[in-house]
Amino acid sequence: MQEPNFDKGEGLVPTVAQDEETGEILMLAYMNREAWLKTLATGKAYYWSRSRQSLWLKGETSGHVQLVREVRLDCDGDTVLLKVKQLGDAACHTGYRSCFYRKWVDGDFVAVGERVFDPKDVYK
Amino acid sequence: MQEPNFDKGEGLVPTVAQDEETGEILMLAYMNREAWLKTLATGKAYYWSRSRQSLWLKGETSGHVQLVREVRLDCDGDTVLLKVKQLGDAACHTGYRSCFYRKWVDGDFVAVGERVFDPKDVYK
Repeated sequence: MQEPNFDKGEGLVPTVAQDEETGEILMLAYMNREAWLKTLATGKAYYWSRSRQSLWLKGETSGHVQLVREVRLDCDGDTVLLKVKQLGDAACHTGYRSCFYRKWVDGDFVAVGERVFDPKDVYK
Repeated sequence: MQEPNFDKGEGLVPTVAQDEETGEILMLAYMNREAWLKTLATGKAYYWSRSRQSLWLKGETSGHVQLVREVRLDCDGDTVLLKVKQLGDAACHTGYRSCFYRKWVDGDFVAVGERVFDPKDVYK
């Protein structure tokens, strides 16, 4: 079975999650081999948390699981793209739909869009 | 002036380039601070080539420059998203429109889509 090149990133591949319907980029996280295999086996996005140094089922706490509809690999084999159905309608722990909710405007990053949920209600 | 967190990735931030019109994810590359500042100053996407260890104007050889329409930062401040107009209609050095031209099908990555150009004609 083929797999991404985990060696280049010292065991990790950056993984982009994109909303399958809207094309919106939801987040970027990292997979190790275990996360990769769990994602394929379950159809749910697993990542490797660099801060917690542990395998992480996206949505484990919030319920905002990502159902994987398509898996893509880039030309170098060192980046993965997941097209997903985002449950709960938001990927970001801040409550925004996408983690990329800050836009560069005249030298500053400005939050655009509205929060889908209040983090206080979700992470207790 | 604000900037991405370059420290977390040892001076580099992964940067996703997305077609501003179609929403297609074209590629993932890395920026250092110099690439970041050059991108802002010129409106063209610059990256740091890890293999060549040098600043890289995307499209320098092929002419397939990316005109930057919007810059986004993620919640952690360690990943950049560029919404771009892709000149030459292809981002990938292999001739495919997107670097993510390989799709996971039954345990293998299979090339999908058609080449926009022949690399032999572009890289001489």
